[in-house]
Amino acid sequence: MKRWISLLTDFGIEDPFVGEMKAVIYSICPDAEVVDLTHGVERHNIRTGAFLLASATPYFPQGSVHVAVVDPGVGSERRAIAVRTNRSIFVGPDNGLLIPAARREGILRAYELTNRSLMRGTVSSTFHGRDVFAPVAAHLACGTSLGEVGGEVKDYVQLSFTEPELDKQGAKCEIIHIDKFGNIVTNISQKHLDKLSDRPSLVVRFRGRRYVGRIVKTYSELSGKEFGLLMGSHGFLEIACRETSAARKLRAKPGDTMRFVTR
Amino acid sequence: MKRWISLLTDFGIEDPFVGEMKAVIYSICPDAEVVDLTHGVERHNIRTGAFLLASATPYFPQGSVHVAVVDPGVGSERRAIAVRTNRSIFVGPDNGLLIPAARREGILRAYELTNRSLMRGTVSSTFHGRDVFAPVAAHLACGTSLGEVGGEVKDYVQLSFTEPELDKQGAKCEIIHIDKFGNIVTNISQKHLDKLSDRPSLVVRFRGRRYVGRIVKTYSELSGKEFGLLMGSHGFLEIACRETSAARKLRAKPGDTMRFVTR
Amino acid sequence: MKRWISLLTDFGIEDPFVGEMKAVIYSICPDAEVVDLTHGVERHNIRTGAFLLASATPYFPQGSVHVAVVDPGVGSERRAIAVRTNRSIFVGPDNGLLIPAARREGILRAYELTNRSLMRGTVSSTFHGRDVFAPVAAHLACGTSLGEVGGEVKDYVQLSFTEPELDKQGAKCEIIHIDKFGNIVTNISQKHLDKLSDRPSLVVRFRGRRYVGRIVKTYSELSGKEFGLLMGSHGFLEIACRETSAARKLRAKPGDTMRFVTR
Repeated sequence: MKRWISLLTDFGIEDPFVGEMKAVIYSICPDAEVVDLTHGVERHNIRTGAFLLASATPYFPQGSVHVAVVDPGVGSERRAIAVRTNRSIFVGPDNGLLIPAARREGILRAYELTNRSLMRGTVSSTFHGRDVFAPVAAHLACGTSLGEVGGEVKDYVQLSFTEPELDKQGAKCEIIHIDKFGNIVTNISQKHLDKLSDRPSLVVRFRGRRYVGRIVKTYSELSGKEFGLLMGSHGFLEIACRETSAARKLRAKPGDTMRFVTR
Repeated sequence: MKRWISLLTDFGIEDPFVGEMKAVIYSICPDAEVVDLTHGVERHNIRTGAFLLASATPYFPQGSVHVAVVDPGVGSERRAIAVRTNRSIFVGPDNGLLIPAARREGILRAYELTNRSLMRGTVSSTFHGRDVFAPVAAHLACGTSLGEVGGEVKDYVQLSFTEPELDKQGAKCEIIHIDKFGNIVTNISQKHLDKLSDRPSLVVRFRGRRYVGRIVKTYSELSGKEFGLLMGSHGFLEIACRETSAARKLRAKPGDTMRFVTR
Repeated sequence: MKRWISLLTDFGIEDPFVGEMKAVIYSICPDAEVVDLTHGVERHNIRTGAFLLASATPYFPQGSVHVAVVDPGVGSERRAIAVRTNRSIFVGPDNGLLIPAARREGILRAYELTNRSLMRGTVSSTFHGRDVFAPVAAHLACGTSLGEVGGEVKDYVQLSFTEPELDKQGAKCEIIHIDKFGNIVTNISQKHLDKLSDRPSLVVRFRGRRYVGRIVKTYSELSGKEFGLLMGSHGFLEIACRETSAARKLRAKPGDTMRFVTR
């Protein structure tokens, strides 16, 4: 049976780092099928990595192993972990990166990776993606039981995305991602939007300016440089502009706070 | 038997959009083998996507399924289609994107995608790549008959590349692509070039300037910043420069018209 | 049995060049599993390509076929070769690109690719990656014996990385790579470093300036914009900076010479 291993990193694709991880995986588990999620996470940006991982993993087959490496603390005392959920196994650094994705599927147990016999013979201090996470994931994909990787941990590092704060005038929200098209992804889901407004448009207040955003279903409803608000494909409200980057126009970046008002 | 599914999109690889399409495909058809053509098509540039798709698909095994998504009209009334040719099946939006590639192989029949049971349970209004095209392609690759996707359509949107216009002094041609090295790919094929000239060089007129281009077989024949004309690997005349980007030097872009004169 | 074929090129991923190579490989050898090393080698930079190839190939399964194409002389009289080592087969242009990687595994024999029946029917003069190297590699991966590709050659083009020159005051070394994070990879290995110094820091002299580099084991030990020296994951001393690109700060590029002094 094929077993899928997904990879998400901030390594980029100019260097052969990702190719080396795949080579290590295939050497241990020839039946693995490796799928790239993205290697373009902003360097060391754990929150963005966590958001993208949680967005993509629900689409994978049951039993997949997900390896994620955004790891500013590589080689330090930070632990390496594997997390079992109802659907999958997540492998990566214990810095919160795996948690939103795993929590979404229901976390059953987490283990610290300490069994050196499942890692490469020599573990570099700078590339645990290749020397720790890839080989452990390959062993797990090929049948090693999760209990063999090391002892259970309960105090793994947590990471959460904030919930928007709704009040009578509107909502304060967080930008959790800017996608490649410059769409601004907020933390407002459909249930928040339902409470927020039943009007055809909302006003966005950001950096001292006001922008009117028409609520639409598709990018194609927008004309020219009009701002639109629409539920994106991952279930969060996005600010979009058809012909240009909404993020560049508003000078918005992940982590920024913005306010929606109903008038 | 393995069945190949190729992907060509304008989604980029910074976000996990392409990874989600692959996850959906493998969940439905574990024996599929997904091959990336490119995800770097200029956003919403249907003509460039159509050219690149038609360039690459002839090299695939018989029976491959090709999914292409350059889709400015996603979520609007534009139809989704699947096209059967003598060699393959093409799946994507009904905006002309698939047609040059499919026509090159001989179009047998086209169908509108309307059978919701072959799509994801919830179809977002912004990401039909994941929710419509990927699952339908996976079902087709794993044996679902093409007639099950929906009714036949005969009035699908056409898209053609222009033919160069030859006259006594030379030829007027269209730039159909700029490749990553800055080579300018025109719509002049070998048969046009044979008619156009048997001289060792041609003059290019573009934006009020004249450039002498020596006809060569390989990039390595060119010296320094000399302009060369050569038949590219897809059978079209290219303007190339060994040490720099010819497109940047001429400020040329896809869709521009240029003139070749024999002296 | 699966047979792995790795690809390393300077083709980029905006055009479907790499997808066409994969399509050709799968058409000939359906059981191949293609793994991308990188397609982001600087255009025509054979030395960088050779370094990256030699870095990554040791991690692949025994019996892999490695195709590398950084090929400024494509279509000229430069030969195409295949090299057998103790672990793998390397396929590519005879310009030195394959040699450091192959030498690291122990070169057994090299052959010129002349057997046209193993190539595509029509060989373009500009894209031997698709028309020569990919099909020959696919035939080799699927069982064709290496002797069938053409005659043995002993005078293939050599390529070596220089050794650092150690003297009483320190060492003169070469920059062999700048990675995506701006880390400066030198040709100093652990054995050189052991001879060079047992102090906690070294002075780097470069372009008329002096930089103090603290010797560390991990990036996380560095604070802010401090320069660190650490053994990278490929076994060479790197100059790194946690929050910025060391290469940009020093204006360093591959091929540059720099000096380390012990005080």
